[in-house]
Amino acid sequence: MKPVISLTTDFGHKGPFVAMMKAVMLARCPDANVIDYTHDIPVHWPPEAGFWLSQGFRSFPPGSIHVAVVDPGVGTERKVLLVQAEDHWFVAPDNGLLGPVIDRTAAASVWSVPVDKLVHELELPAPSHTFHGRDVFAPLAGELAAARFEPAILGAVTDDWIPSQIEPPIALGKTVRGSVITVDHFGNLISNIDAALVADLGNPVVELAGHQYELHTTYAKVTPGDYLALVNSLGVIEVARAEGNASKDLGLGRGAPVSVIDRGTP
Amino acid sequence: MKPVISLTTDFGHKGPFVAMMKAVMLARCPDANVIDYTHDIPVHWPPEAGFWLSQGFRSFPPGSIHVAVVDPGVGTERKVLLVQAEDHWFVAPDNGLLGPVIDRTAAASVWSVPVDKLVHELELPAPSHTFHGRDVFAPLAGELAAARFEPAILGAVTDDWIPSQIEPPIALGKTVRGSVITVDHFGNLISNIDAALVADLGNPVVELAGHQYELHTTYAKVTPGDYLALVNSLGVIEVARAEGNASKDLGLGRGAPVSVIDRGTP
Amino acid sequence: MKPVISLTTDFGHKGPFVAMMKAVMLARCPDANVIDYTHDIPVHWPPEAGFWLSQGFRSFPPGSIHVAVVDPGVGTERKVLLVQAEDHWFVAPDNGLLGPVIDRTAAASVWSVPVDKLVHELELPAPSHTFHGRDVFAPLAGELAAARFEPAILGAVTDDWIPSQIEPPIALGKTVRGSVITVDHFGNLISNIDAALVADLGNPVVELAGHQYELHTTYAKVTPGDYLALVNSLGVIEVARAEGNASKDLGLGRGAPVSVIDRGTP
Repeated sequence: MKPVISLTTDFGHKGPFVAMMKAVMLARCPDANVIDYTHDIPVHWPPEAGFWLSQGFRSFPPGSIHVAVVDPGVGTERKVLLVQAEDHWFVAPDNGLLGPVIDRTAAASVWSVPVDKLVHELELPAPSHTFHGRDVFAPLAGELAAARFEPAILGAVTDDWIPSQIEPPIALGKTVRGSVITVDHFGNLISNIDAALVADLGNPVVELAGHQYELHTTYAKVTPGDYLALVNSLGVIEVARAEGNASKDLGLGRGAPVSVIDRGTP
Repeated sequence: MKPVISLTTDFGHKGPFVAMMKAVMLARCPDANVIDYTHDIPVHWPPEAGFWLSQGFRSFPPGSIHVAVVDPGVGTERKVLLVQAEDHWFVAPDNGLLGPVIDRTAAASVWSVPVDKLVHELELPAPSHTFHGRDVFAPLAGELAAARFEPAILGAVTDDWIPSQIEPPIALGKTVRGSVITVDHFGNLISNIDAALVADLGNPVVELAGHQYELHTTYAKVTPGDYLALVNSLGVIEVARAEGNASKDLGLGRGAPVSVIDRGTP
Repeated sequence: MKPVISLTTDFGHKGPFVAMMKAVMLARCPDANVIDYTHDIPVHWPPEAGFWLSQGFRSFPPGSIHVAVVDPGVGTERKVLLVQAEDHWFVAPDNGLLGPVIDRTAAASVWSVPVDKLVHELELPAPSHTFHGRDVFAPLAGELAAARFEPAILGAVTDDWIPSQIEPPIALGKTVRGSVITVDHFGNLISNIDAALVADLGNPVVELAGHQYELHTTYAKVTPGDYLALVNSLGVIEVARAEGNASKDLGLGRGAPVSVIDRGTP
């Protein structure tokens, strides 16, 4: 089966930088099918990359390799993270990016290795200081895709990796606490709280910055201009303003705390 | 031969939504080669998607599958349209999007089916309310690409499908009437009138909003700042302003009526 | 091995024009893997396309085909250029675009042919006046990818091709002269001067518009707001302003002359 590689970065769509990564992957695995996942992750906000991956990776074929490069620490001592979970592979800087994936998968195997060790084991040319996407992560993904890579050469699996900047959502009695993980281009505030986490709350309401928002099934259920909360097509809680921009109008964005609370018998 | 799938949406280039559709297609048909056709169709303007497809699909290999999702009616009772024409397949919401394709192809076979029936026949998980691109159209395209899909399971072909918001161009004696179907990023007003439709007019002139524009072969034939009409590289009539922005300067856009008139012996 | 085609244009990311080229390539070579290299080359600035290609093509697998269409002369008498160098193929208008590639590769073989001759030899339909990317360059690339094309049908190789608008960097004694070839989205002024060209200068400094900038290893070596020069991840000299926009703040852009000078014993 032709190996699929998904590619997530903060490079945007200008210039040949994404293509330079693809070239390196194809040179090592000509059969690979490289799919752009998203290139619009905000610089310095790796948790959004991990969030999108955790929400979407299961749609890809088993055996897919997911490469994510949001790498403010490039050129420092930060390590390279390799994760195997649910028959998918993930490759990223060890900076918390893959936290949401590890948190939401069963029995993830994690390797965290210094760049030097990886360069040595893969016999790579000395990497540049600023473009490890091309020089470190792409070759690793290409070797994985070509089935030439054996993770044992990186040593034992580890529990010692950098957690996400954002804590995973947590259920405390009748409250589930999470965070705004991303804002879509309509200004909807998308949280990391899965619908499954709030399924047991009898009479839930969503709380954000001191205000409470009713859960509805679609935007059309409220009057234009009104705020609402809903479970979106990603299966997570979001707060939106019908025909408006909730993020701009509330002055809230990535990282804002969100809770879902059970008000008890209505 | 490796199956080609073209993908047309109004999703824009941000976020992983296009990639989520590709993942579903590849999970069902790992050999598929998915090509981004365009993702800039204006929301609520499905006819532009159909126009671009009708102009470009014949460049793709025979057997290609063209998926188009501009779907303001997602979550309502709108049906799913499957079209086979000239050895190409088309998959889209039944909202008029594919009208321009059906109008311009010979002997199109059309199936229009409720979402529920398709979900049942393909044994799909219950779709979300808001993302049928991923949950309905992508699986159908993947099954088509994998040659596992037999349209007979959808029942008989039908003549009962939603026509385009824009009427197909029509020749009435010495006049051909059409519409502005899209505006390119130079502000050129591109109509749905094929050059072939006006080939018999002896002394044609293009009429738009009460003004007449001469037909020239290239932009360079007029003085910068002047308006002109021409047959563009897509083979359709457009109205442009040399080194200017016809759409902005005339205050006209998508949907505006355009005619080509024969002025008779010059 | 599956043939790889890279695609460089000034078409931007809107509309189906890039996809129309891919469709033509796939119709002629269904196995081809077409990779978007960059579509953001400024109109009328072909040397940037050649620069990016010269910097990145060696990352692609041997045998790759690189198609570049920045073509202000489309519809005029400009010829088609085919270049073979270091086991890669390059296809572009003969307008100087490929100058940086030819200048930086060993023993390039170059063919320059009139469009009419190519159309005749490949038995292509008559091309449009405005879209040779689809009608001329894509079919040629497709035939190359399918290994059905023999360059001998274009006649002998030639030395007679249009040089780049920008001269290749040149070393004159203790000075290396080059040009700003592109500006990245941070406003960094990227020159065409390879680090190797200045390796022998004992005490180098970068000169741009009458000012001298010290060479540092990373942006972090200077105070925010200060200017610096460095060898970037592409291996070329650039001038940047730490946490600023050098292009905007200096009022300089593409084409500006850059020199690296040896100040002698410090």
